[in-house]
Amino acid sequence: MLKLAHFLQAGCKVKILLADIHGFLDNLKAPIELVKFRAEYYKYVITALLKAVNVPIDKLEFVLGSSYQLSEKYTMDIFRLSSVVTEHDAKKAGAEVVKQVENATLSGLIYPLMQALDEEHLGVDAQFGGVDQRKIFALAKEVLPRVGYRERAHLMNPMVPGLAGGKMSASDPDSKIDLLDTPEVVKKKIKKAFAPPKEVEGNGMMSFVEYVLLPAGALQGEDQKFVVERREGEPLVYTNIEKMHEDYKADILTPQLLKSGVTAALLALLEPVQAAFQASQEWQDIEKKAYPPPPEKKKKEKKKDLGKFHPDAKKVEAQPDGSVQGNRQQQVSVSTGAEEAMKRLVLEKKAVES
Amino acid sequence: MLKLAHFLQAGCKVKILLADIHGFLDNLKAPIELVKFRAEYYKYVITALLKAVNVPIDKLEFVLGSSYQLSEKYTMDIFRLSSVVTEHDAKKAGAEVVKQVENATLSGLIYPLMQALDEEHLGVDAQFGGVDQRKIFALAKEVLPRVGYRERAHLMNPMVPGLAGGKMSASDPDSKIDLLDTPEVVKKKIKKAFAPPKEVEGNGMMSFVEYVLLPAGALQGEDQKFVVERREGEPLVYTNIEKMHEDYKADILTPQLLKSGVTAALLALLEPVQAAFQASQEWQDIEKKAYPPPPEKKKKEKKKDLGKFHPDAKKVEAQPDGSVQGNRQQQVSVSTGAEEAMKRLVLEKKAVES
Repeated sequence: MLKLAHFLQAGCKVKILLADIHGFLDNLKAPIELVKFRAEYYKYVITALLKAVNVPIDKLEFVLGSSYQLSEKYTMDIFRLSSVVTEHDAKKAGAEVVKQVENATLSGLIYPLMQALDEEHLGVDAQFGGVDQRKIFALAKEVLPRVGYRERAHLMNPMVPGLAGGKMSASDPDSKIDLLDTPEVVKKKIKKAFAPPKEVEGNGMMSFVEYVLLPAGALQGEDQKFVVERREGEPLVYTNIEKMHEDYKADILTPQLLKSGVTAALLALLEPVQAAFQASQEWQDIEKKAYPPPPEKKKKEKKKDLGKFHPDAKKVEAQPDGSVQGNRQQQVSVSTGAEEAMKRLVLEKKAVES
Repeated sequence: MLKLAHFLQAGCKVKILLADIHGFLDNLKAPIELVKFRAEYYKYVITALLKAVNVPIDKLEFVLGSSYQLSEKYTMDIFRLSSVVTEHDAKKAGAEVVKQVENATLSGLIYPLMQALDEEHLGVDAQFGGVDQRKIFALAKEVLPRVGYRERAHLMNPMVPGLAGGKMSASDPDSKIDLLDTPEVVKKKIKKAFAPPKEVEGNGMMSFVEYVLLPAGALQGEDQKFVVERREGEPLVYTNIEKMHEDYKADILTPQLLKSGVTAALLALLEPVQAAFQASQEWQDIEKKAYPPPPEKKKKEKKKDLGKFHPDAKKVEAQPDGSVQGNRQQQVSVSTGAEEAMKRLVLEKKAVES
């Protein structure tokens, strides 16, 4: 998500694919109608978050997959692609993205073909995603020219550990923060989060600061800054991740202090998003349709601590790697002035990294 | 083909799928445009042959695959089916129909799904094909109900040996007669055909009489009859296949006599079809588009004996098994009065078999 903000701030035209059909193909338990509501719901969430970090959204466009992926031309292109891509290559391309199960259905093989074809049909110059997408990107590079379309550029974000350490997982709510998690839920999740003392590698909390909170500060027009209040002594103020790493290794910035700093910064970031949700009847309506309460309430007690804004574990969330969970694809169209925009993008990135 | 004639004569409504997209998916060497022309060409051929055997064609309808297989609803149904059919089952279903190669492309897995879905989208009650289709039919039976559609009936013709013995092959022109083969070519092919003395099993010539020439005679309003003129003695006149088998085993009906009888009957059957071709500028035009002469003429000498009406080895032909080569699918819709029609169909079949 934050990387999208960078693209927008750099002047890129950004198209976000609300991949309802992809979602259906990869997550067969959800009927397509539900997936469509979720795609619509994401639109609200993403827009609110981008507004919260104060980036211009006039060059942001949402495209619902089913708005063009059922067209004659797209369908014929799927058939054409299916005639040049082997079963083996389609399977390999989807290995890190498509759910891997025994007795896999055909849908998982069609999925990577569509993601390649989307570049052409969305009319973009580059596709952006997590590094887990790289095999699909490689497939796209190879096969689009074989059906007469040009090869696109691909931009990738590193994968960042989840809050609980290890890979983030849509089915583990504790591995990520949902944008509509209540302050109580946020506090609980961060309390449980993985932050081993003095270790910065694989530290979910530290990565979250590096990839979400520091860049988000910079986007809001200020210098990037991460502040940790202390009971005793002056607050710790960081403007780059290197100094934080240094202090953390020296245990000046303890896990407890890091967590309290993250909690405060995150609540401040989420506050306008949640206010926007409260103010929008439309968004609330679509949320109810996208995540209807389960018919049976057997596991009510277990769900208690998820908070009233947490409809289910699959909701979209600000992930440290910049991707939107469940809506795996973000695409970036570098429009006129692409070169200029790319330069600024690099500068922006450098600014974030320095 | 002859079975289609029986369906029509029994009062069934028959839809023939001109499977251009299937053809493209299974035969990737031919561009889709060429396949469309071939589908159009088949329409002329099939109509002419049905007229030649004198069956009513007012209940015959041709449907071009691409006229509905690129629609939104169909495409979404493909996606839905792809989410319930495993790679393994799709592969198994197509094993006898889809070209089996190493490093097979995805198109071969999509093919059986489409053939199942066609039953719903063509609005038919039954699908008809050779027994080689049985695994696809089994798949259709199983999976249509899983996406909310009703299961259809399936009618199958036995596979009949080619003229050369063994399986008929689109790539071996000597294994079959093309409807536009010149009399000279027909004579040559039959001369070469496999007809071992006294053996009726696997005898391509005998099967051809049983499944094409005897039934065709019956359709033309006369009793079924197969006549073999002899230089000496009275002609041999057969009204059923059993008597023919008997005489053949006794070498009364020798291979030479059988072949001369087949040649005469076949030329009589083809004559009106070829006359219709000569009389139709449209048909001739579409034939040129469907089978353009190859750019290089290296193999000219080899092709000499194929005759001027034989544009290439893949043209449609009257096959003893009733199927149309390259256009693998014929579908039968039993419309109102289905029961009555089916009864007549059974009677008709009995008449043929008795």
